[in-house]
Amino acid sequence: MSTLTVELDERSYPIFIESNLFTQPNALTAHIKSKKVVIISNEVVAPLYLDVIDNALAGFNVSHIILPDGEQHKNLQSFEVVISKLLSMSASRDTTLIALGGGVIGDLTGFVAACYQRGMPFIQIPTTLLSQVDSSVGGKTAVNHPLGKNMIGAFYQPKAVLIDISSLSTLPAREFSAGMAEVIKYGVIYDYNFFVWLEENQQAIKQQDTAALSYMIKRCCEIKAEIVAIDERESGLRAILNLGHTFGHAIEAEQGYGNWLHGEAVSTGIVLASAVATKKDWLNASEFSRIESLLQAFDLPTLAPSDMTYDDFIQHMRHDKKVFDGQLFFVIPKGIGKAVVTNDITDEILHTVLS
Amino acid sequence: MSTLTVELDERSYPIFIESNLFTQPNALTAHIKSKKVVIISNEVVAPLYLDVIDNALAGFNVSHIILPDGEQHKNLQSFEVVISKLLSMSASRDTTLIALGGGVIGDLTGFVAACYQRGMPFIQIPTTLLSQVDSSVGGKTAVNHPLGKNMIGAFYQPKAVLIDISSLSTLPAREFSAGMAEVIKYGVIYDYNFFVWLEENQQAIKQQDTAALSYMIKRCCEIKAEIVAIDERESGLRAILNLGHTFGHAIEAEQGYGNWLHGEAVSTGIVLASAVATKKDWLNASEFSRIESLLQAFDLPTLAPSDMTYDDFIQHMRHDKKVFDGQLFFVIPKGIGKAVVTNDITDEILHTVLS
Repeated sequence: MSTLTVELDERSYPIFIESNLFTQPNALTAHIKSKKVVIISNEVVAPLYLDVIDNALAGFNVSHIILPDGEQHKNLQSFEVVISKLLSMSASRDTTLIALGGGVIGDLTGFVAACYQRGMPFIQIPTTLLSQVDSSVGGKTAVNHPLGKNMIGAFYQPKAVLIDISSLSTLPAREFSAGMAEVIKYGVIYDYNFFVWLEENQQAIKQQDTAALSYMIKRCCEIKAEIVAIDERESGLRAILNLGHTFGHAIEAEQGYGNWLHGEAVSTGIVLASAVATKKDWLNASEFSRIESLLQAFDLPTLAPSDMTYDDFIQHMRHDKKVFDGQLFFVIPKGIGKAVVTNDITDEILHTVLS
Repeated sequence: MSTLTVELDERSYPIFIESNLFTQPNALTAHIKSKKVVIISNEVVAPLYLDVIDNALAGFNVSHIILPDGEQHKNLQSFEVVISKLLSMSASRDTTLIALGGGVIGDLTGFVAACYQRGMPFIQIPTTLLSQVDSSVGGKTAVNHPLGKNMIGAFYQPKAVLIDISSLSTLPAREFSAGMAEVIKYGVIYDYNFFVWLEENQQAIKQQDTAALSYMIKRCCEIKAEIVAIDERESGLRAILNLGHTFGHAIEAEQGYGNWLHGEAVSTGIVLASAVATKKDWLNASEFSRIESLLQAFDLPTLAPSDMTYDDFIQHMRHDKKVFDGQLFFVIPKGIGKAVVTNDITDEILHTVLS
């Protein structure tokens, strides 16, 4: 089993990466201090994994809250539904919440855990590639608002992240691809060698070779844990993890949450940010093309929706969390393996790239 | 001017206590790092103080969000209204929120500040006695749920608390009395000498003598700052600040938020907790009577609503934040000037006290 730690002093926590993790005694229960446990999942994931998790929790007082599936349910209404259910179950500040599902379940459950009675313990069991490599690690929790993605949330760390690689075998191909957008992102922003490894191991990854997936997921979690340990609340470095997200969130909001998967929007966003980089001579044509090709190799979109105009993008990006003092900041690659946060992008460049 | 500091490492902040504070240049602006400022207030307070605050903010880009007055509006619906307005104003993570009003405005604004784009700076300008001595200090933010008070919230500290004693001159007498319940609470739980001072200075306080109010508010803030610095997230000591609140919250929820003022419910709660203490021989009859008399001297209620049964209390208290592992914990005075948190209260004692 691979074990990493997110180093955040008294809020530090472990990430476990393994196949068939929940057949191991104590893998889950070691992180639960309460008798009462509430599992939050969705209608797609629950039938696949709830039994395994329930079995692993023999002896605990376990309840379930099952939500509909999809990004369109990651909103304040679902947040209120979960809070009301917890209250009617008489859940207390020491009840443990378990997020069993992808990024939507993880972000929503984390935000509920942050706010219910001003904070209760929670555990992440991410079941999609995207949530395993990105959203379950680092403590960003949130729900969406019609005017912007993740606009309502908190920095709130889980007690543990338990990644069972076996869960990827039931993941729809489109969702696996969406997760690869975030995987490729780590190579572009932080680790050239990892980018090359991804180029060279496409086949093994697509065939879901256990050793390849294991290494890949671990490397992503390592990078994320390293960045989050340096800058938990995104005062600086952590912002580079948002490569492709400013453009991507605009696509998601414009197209209606759930129509483009988050990872698909991020893929297109990475290409747009890379196009900006070429205009600034921070990426050459060959580097741009390698980024684009690797995303395409995993069947990811690289073009913005044809009906989306420059004005549509600007309209949504005004609400981006990287607006400071009225200025919009972007994450832009500088070569493959490094990225910077900058507001030094001319309207001309944006116009060219977004039109 | 009196200045105190809430010592919380990088989250430390000052509390200023003064008359006519906002006629002083920089009293407010020294704590604002952004150009954009949004003041959140209510329909009663805004006409009284908004002009003064706006004048103090000359040169900033200032917007207002004015909510209806009353505890019944401290809910998730108002939270969403404020978030939506902030988004349509294109407020960003570095916009500063100012809470101008009593505990409802302070708690709601603080919770919005905690969650909007995962956290933005905010300043407390409490205008009621209750918010000046209690809710504006210490970073407890929340909204109510129909099933329980302050069930949805966060620990989130302001950048500064600015207390203008002059604002009490326009406070309705009933609200001034409600604030006195929290003032008296500090004497009961933490400071016998302060309790005696309150007994001896009733007249000066009722006449709103500036020196008396100034000392009284400062002493309350000192005690709260001291306790919060030791136990910010209520893992132990801080719970004593909830004397009277477990019973009080049950009264507020049962009677409908806004019908009993929070301070009025706390007053009755303090008497109920003191009655429990006498059953355990932790208070003698004379101490009980001094507590009851001091509350009555400020026109505060000391009896539970006549139509509220033992079962009504228990029903609401099951949702209290001091339920751990299925056990309800109470804050009970042990003599005047000390309080303990205990679950060692028999049903028999509760029955006698609540019936």
